[in-house]
Amino acid sequence: MPLWKIYHPVNAFSDVDKKGIAQAITSVYQNFMPRFYVGVTFQEVSESNIYIGGEPHSEFIRISIDHIARTFQSVDLKITFFNRINTLLEPWIESRGYDWEMHVDETPFDLWTIQGHFPPQEGTPDERRWMEENRASARTHA
Amino acid sequence: MPLWKIYHPVNAFSDVDKKGIAQAITSVYQNFMPRFYVGVTFQEVSESNIYIGGEPHSEFIRISIDHIARTFQSVDLKITFFNRINTLLEPWIESRGYDWEMHVDETPFDLWTIQGHFPPQEGTPDERRWMEENRASARTHA
Amino acid sequence: MPLWKIYHPVNAFSDVDKKGIAQAITSVYQNFMPRFYVGVTFQEVSESNIYIGGEPHSEFIRISIDHIARTFQSVDLKITFFNRINTLLEPWIESRGYDWEMHVDETPFDLWTIQGHFPPQEGTPDERRWMEENRASARTHA
Repeated sequence: MPLWKIYHPVNAFSDVDKKGIAQAITSVYQNFMPRFYVGVTFQEVSESNIYIGGEPHSEFIRISIDHIARTFQSVDLKITFFNRINTLLEPWIESRGYDWEMHVDETPFDLWTIQGHFPPQEGTPDERRWMEENRASARTHA
Repeated sequence: MPLWKIYHPVNAFSDVDKKGIAQAITSVYQNFMPRFYVGVTFQEVSESNIYIGGEPHSEFIRISIDHIARTFQSVDLKITFFNRINTLLEPWIESRGYDWEMHVDETPFDLWTIQGHFPPQEGTPDERRWMEENRASARTHA
Repeated sequence: MPLWKIYHPVNAFSDVDKKGIAQAITSVYQNFMPRFYVGVTFQEVSESNIYIGGEPHSEFIRISIDHIARTFQSVDLKITFFNRINTLLEPWIESRGYDWEMHVDETPFDLWTIQGHFPPQEGTPDERRWMEENRASARTHA
């Protein structure tokens, strides 16, 4: 469900960094949904391919996220989420001197499939089974 | 209108595969809108650049779709669409042992231009002409 | 806030072109918001990786835009925006014989941070300071 796209300067992150970032992000979601819902992708963008305010920016990390499985139910939850993410990512981004920006879009729950299955609703027995088994399977409830 | 982005493992698809996939996808839309509305892009993602549940996944295909020209008018149509797509793509994805996930976002019809033209409304004479000519042109109706 | 993604044929644009395009785009927004809100990215897509209507298209430019800081307040403003963009980009796109398509999605204002800060509301003293300083900083108003 969350699909994270992290656009970053060439060689900003090692493979170890990337796995660490992906695991930090996954930790934010895994108590609320199956771990395998969390997709994180990295894409290098060279300096001549990113402009901020009309100028090339060689030290910029742009994060674009689609939330599908859940929508925020209150302003407090939104603030908590962003503060937690910004804190978690601090060692890889702010501490290294990068500028960064991120935004989330919320897309329709019922326009989403995994392995051809429509994911179960939040809190259902099927969702609990998907969390336990950490994989998609046929639903046993409507 | 639909803009498909298919993120796939390096060398997962040949050029022949890609054209076959694009044509299968186009076939789902072409009775309802001009063929040239259907855009399909492919992007290789190496194993160290995609993480599912915090782990690198070398066999994962992630499809992200923007629907612009049409919105689904019923739950049945949504289910039919996803089932048809999953069946059509089966030879290139499930049959080859890939895991896959896809989601659709619906974006505003009136924030969209092709060749500088705002596309005509569904069912208008202009849209029928665009379907017949398979290209954008100036509108003759409001 | 606006995040522009410009998918273009290999070698369609020089670095000078890209900067010119980014500056033209930024000029559309800069009277209404801080310049550094405007992010423009370029991504080459080879002919075998983009299909329009099921056929590879070696001369196609696809622009996908997320608007976060502002939503259009009237139909006239939408039309004005697209016409202005299409005119501004004409030297790099239509004049060179490329086909092109673009669409905008509007994503939630309150799901967005820059340097860890939630951007100030439109028209506030904090936003004016961000415009003057052309950088994000801690807010001084709620």
